[in-house]
Amino acid sequence: MASNSSKPGFCEGARTLPVKRVRAGQGLELMQDWVADEVPVALEYNGISHAVMLATPLDLEDFALGFSLSEGILSAAHELYGVEEEASELGITLHLRVAGEAFARLKERRRSMAGRTGCGLCGTESLGQVARNLPVLPGGQVLQREAISHAMAQFVDLQTLQQATGAVHAAAWCSADGEVQWLREDVGRHNALDKLIGALARHTVDASQGFIAVTSRASFEMVQKTAAAGVPLLAAVSAPTSFAVATATRANMTLVGFARQQDLVVYCHPERLALEHLSSAHHAH
Amino acid sequence: MASNSSKPGFCEGARTLPVKRVRAGQGLELMQDWVADEVPVALEYNGISHAVMLATPLDLEDFALGFSLSEGILSAAHELYGVEEEASELGITLHLRVAGEAFARLKERRRSMAGRTGCGLCGTESLGQVARNLPVLPGGQVLQREAISHAMAQFVDLQTLQQATGAVHAAAWCSADGEVQWLREDVGRHNALDKLIGALARHTVDASQGFIAVTSRASFEMVQKTAAAGVPLLAAVSAPTSFAVATATRANMTLVGFARQQDLVVYCHPERLALEHLSSAHHAH
Repeated sequence: MASNSSKPGFCEGARTLPVKRVRAGQGLELMQDWVADEVPVALEYNGISHAVMLATPLDLEDFALGFSLSEGILSAAHELYGVEEEASELGITLHLRVAGEAFARLKERRRSMAGRTGCGLCGTESLGQVARNLPVLPGGQVLQREAISHAMAQFVDLQTLQQATGAVHAAAWCSADGEVQWLREDVGRHNALDKLIGALARHTVDASQGFIAVTSRASFEMVQKTAAAGVPLLAAVSAPTSFAVATATRANMTLVGFARQQDLVVYCHPERLALEHLSSAHHAH
Repeated sequence: MASNSSKPGFCEGARTLPVKRVRAGQGLELMQDWVADEVPVALEYNGISHAVMLATPLDLEDFALGFSLSEGILSAAHELYGVEEEASELGITLHLRVAGEAFARLKERRRSMAGRTGCGLCGTESLGQVARNLPVLPGGQVLQREAISHAMAQFVDLQTLQQATGAVHAAAWCSADGEVQWLREDVGRHNALDKLIGALARHTVDASQGFIAVTSRASFEMVQKTAAAGVPLLAAVSAPTSFAVATATRANMTLVGFARQQDLVVYCHPERLALEHLSSAHHAH
């Protein structure tokens, strides 16, 4: 399993801070608490500053690649020649060396979007640009629904940073039978997914042969990134949004929410999951 | 209490979708599930497109104002002359009419940032720009710690959209004694906070006289927005990040995490909370 390691008294991606804790019936305690690291991470392509993300400084090479792929700056992993990390008092700069085609694409995109300053959807200034280049995923493979509960059952033990801090999300890629093969953690759920997508690309995993499970909700961007990575099923511990369901429907992606223990809810394209026969037809509000 | 209302069979900001639900021991059910609305919302200032956010289409006038204040586009609520909503198939455009000074500020900022296309921290391209204009909050008022648990206890009943969908976050402004006065919900925790900040500004609430409670974690941006709104204490249901703690420390803001029932953890500036005397001094890892 590719995950982050922890040692007693040390947890990568977290630090201890002195805090004051109050518990009912126990009064006030002074103690040391583990807090997840959140650091400004600047991405620079061939010497040009591009964006600053707030991220947990773990697996940053995966992050650099996954973010660049998700954002469409790179069309494939081989366009990334190398990443160097430079730490300073202010944060971490990731210096990416990318292929000429990728750099030309980035410059073209920056020209066409000149002047964008707001936050929100990446590089998006008007509504017409929102649903860019969404692939339509092929059908085929059918998963047993137990694969999802099996994947979810492995999360707790693998989320070492979450265990220490309670502050981070995880995204995992699982084989078709629900074995977690790759897992990444971050204070941001989008970052965790980008790190996972970068790890899959770096290790030339055929991501279409399994599914992605996340500890968070499923929003539009989570569906968009998963589809762009060619993964046909996304399972979230929590709820999806309406736009996530609409986007997954359009991308021919199976979207599962509230995946907890043996339970789950399928929001679209249930044909990829082998579900039992109907025991009852119930319409509730 | 200023909150969203719900009627039986109707929930503003959500819609029903047909889903397939599997529960352990109950087999498969076809049912209707409530899903939170997530819609691309474009912000346009005096006719100039600025950014697209994914948000729940509730309280959008609050959102327009709060986002503009948090982002530093407006320096005060009176610089916003009006907001018109225009809905289309692709989403919602908010047409903001802003004062000349604000528009000049926006144009200057867009010029100086020309070419930014990435996502991440709003309008931030390099590390040096991250911690912009953080105010230092005045000391003074001391809250009883029961005010926090009292505020948290009111959340469940007030989160009507969360009750229906399980997919949204809430941010609330509470008076010094912990009464929730204003609450806003959104699929994004930053949006919920921006909506709240907009509501406070529209109704000329002296936000410094109370505190903000959120159902999410406390990250850097949540602390930054709260500080910019002049609110001296932020209480989060979940954990803070290291950068959130560092930023709150610098802004002289009291940061509380894991605020659940009677429990809480104070991460910095505990002097604003009346805590019991030490019952024990315990150092744990």
